[in-house]
Amino acid sequence: MITTDILIIGAGPTGLFAVFEAGLLQLKCHIIDALPQPGGQCAEIYPKKPIYDIPGFPEVLAGELVDNLMEQIKPFQPGFTLGERAETIEKQEDGSFVVTTNKGTQHKAPIVAIAGGLGSFEPRKPQLPNLSDYEDKGIVYMIKEPEVFRDRRVLIAGGGDSALDWSIFLADVASEVTLVHRRNEFRGALDSVEKVQQLKNQKKINLITPAEVRSLEGAEKLERVVIEKTDSGEKIDLEVDDFIPLFGLSPKLGPIADWGLEIEKNAIKVDNTLDYQTNIPGIYAIGDVNTYPGKLKLILCGFHEATLMCQSAYQRIHPDKKYVMKYTTVGGVTGFDGSKKEAPKAVVKAIE
Amino acid sequence: MITTDILIIGAGPTGLFAVFEAGLLQLKCHIIDALPQPGGQCAEIYPKKPIYDIPGFPEVLAGELVDNLMEQIKPFQPGFTLGERAETIEKQEDGSFVVTTNKGTQHKAPIVAIAGGLGSFEPRKPQLPNLSDYEDKGIVYMIKEPEVFRDRRVLIAGGGDSALDWSIFLADVASEVTLVHRRNEFRGALDSVEKVQQLKNQKKINLITPAEVRSLEGAEKLERVVIEKTDSGEKIDLEVDDFIPLFGLSPKLGPIADWGLEIEKNAIKVDNTLDYQTNIPGIYAIGDVNTYPGKLKLILCGFHEATLMCQSAYQRIHPDKKYVMKYTTVGGVTGFDGSKKEAPKAVVKAIE
Repeated sequence: MITTDILIIGAGPTGLFAVFEAGLLQLKCHIIDALPQPGGQCAEIYPKKPIYDIPGFPEVLAGELVDNLMEQIKPFQPGFTLGERAETIEKQEDGSFVVTTNKGTQHKAPIVAIAGGLGSFEPRKPQLPNLSDYEDKGIVYMIKEPEVFRDRRVLIAGGGDSALDWSIFLADVASEVTLVHRRNEFRGALDSVEKVQQLKNQKKINLITPAEVRSLEGAEKLERVVIEKTDSGEKIDLEVDDFIPLFGLSPKLGPIADWGLEIEKNAIKVDNTLDYQTNIPGIYAIGDVNTYPGKLKLILCGFHEATLMCQSAYQRIHPDKKYVMKYTTVGGVTGFDGSKKEAPKAVVKAIE
Repeated sequence: MITTDILIIGAGPTGLFAVFEAGLLQLKCHIIDALPQPGGQCAEIYPKKPIYDIPGFPEVLAGELVDNLMEQIKPFQPGFTLGERAETIEKQEDGSFVVTTNKGTQHKAPIVAIAGGLGSFEPRKPQLPNLSDYEDKGIVYMIKEPEVFRDRRVLIAGGGDSALDWSIFLADVASEVTLVHRRNEFRGALDSVEKVQQLKNQKKINLITPAEVRSLEGAEKLERVVIEKTDSGEKIDLEVDDFIPLFGLSPKLGPIADWGLEIEKNAIKVDNTLDYQTNIPGIYAIGDVNTYPGKLKLILCGFHEATLMCQSAYQRIHPDKKYVMKYTTVGGVTGFDGSKKEAPKAVVKAIE
């Protein structure tokens, strides 16, 4: 059982920054996220896209913002449960909560902060009758560790940046990369499209378009697929070790929708007059996942909400203590790892 | 008469960022500030101090943050009335406001956003009977343009960073720099204290401590001062062209306190349930100057408040239009100067 002060669900920018504000209050955080790495959409969907409305950054790549936040929260040593989806929540007799993931990992905390963005990102799946038979037996929808594909025969399906970028990357790792797309046209960064063209010419990527995977075969695990060229009707039998459909991710509020929280338009209603708490005391919702009058789904608003949430959480955890805010410029930042950052002190010195 | 969409009072980080969010909504801004440069406290009081709690910056100097914000808002070409204090406000028949400064500059806008921080920074003045006779006739409390002191005999009083730094700077500009402080000890950055010691040794700064200025003399303008060495009682007559007391700045809510706004604990009460509007419709208060339940005087909160304020201002100005928010990552940023920033577009391209 993982125990912490604030259990944060969602490792996007809002969830990450909550770790910093909690840390200033000497509260520890642990973060659960369904994606394999921190950063949420910023890391998974558009790491190389510029954001222009983060205050103080005339322009910042989404991936850079995540890197900066990870650096900023480092002194407060957050824990991470990644690649797992928060599934159930149970209130304990002592008022705390136990949150269990789809893989059975249990977390206990007096405060739960849902920073779930648009929801947990679930892969869009191809329509194939026996698909579920081969999931995790040759079929994966997200690549966590590309090395597992070394010297294997890999089939990728899709026509966007993910399909292009992973085809390029795995061309150097796998023994064989086949890329299937239902159109001849790909949609992505110019660089990536050109690179795939090159690798195809060099016969490092086996490109089949316009085509779709029609059936999956194999005894214990995936062994073969049948691909249909949709222009000619031609059927191609292909022996593969891995099939990676990359048809995009679609956010779903998911199991959180059943936690007894007040939901409005697929978002969690919170009290914006004070602390962004939900209808269940001790559970907060911050960032894009929440809603209130005038709500804007902007990263900078999530930062503010995370900050006020932490103050409220502190009061719940320490009802007897009065917290007096200190500015970081004055008091510095003292990490749980013993690190200390602070402004150079002024000297008092006579001039003779 | 200067006209604009949103008249912002206060050029600190919150006021500056409001220009950006307003710009995204195609609203123009003009900023009034009592200080001679933008940035508020960050620029005037602690430009070289690090801030650790701006989201996405593990550490940023206050002065850098201001520079970054100025760069970020550049496409939206804000107007500035600097070195003037907003003095009076008058509601017009058409519902707009006219704000007049202490120097008589008039500004008209349908929306006024007070981002006044702790108030306008007023210099602390020495207790001298005929002080006001010489104000702007040899006595100034803030240095806007150091070149005006070229080849003049300058007297600085004070024992902190401002007194040290300006003594150092003016040692190369003025014909004579005298620094008076009531103690032998100075309080400031080690570098600055050491540099003044050096310049004193080189006779480039005339240092008199412990001492205080006791009287001011001169017919039309300041010509002479009498300085008393407080240890020996010795009186020193000194001919000077300029006397610059640098005893620090003290924030005062000032004339805004008389604008009919609901005030609580020296801050302006706002509606945090929606848009940070004050009790006077069309006048908003954002950043450290406002108060509401759970208020935190943090820069990051001011950014959020500025953003929600702009949405509300847009609806007041365009009651008939429905604004649909576009993410900057998707829609880019189109400046009033014709500039355009946007993410590189994805291509749709066949691979053959």
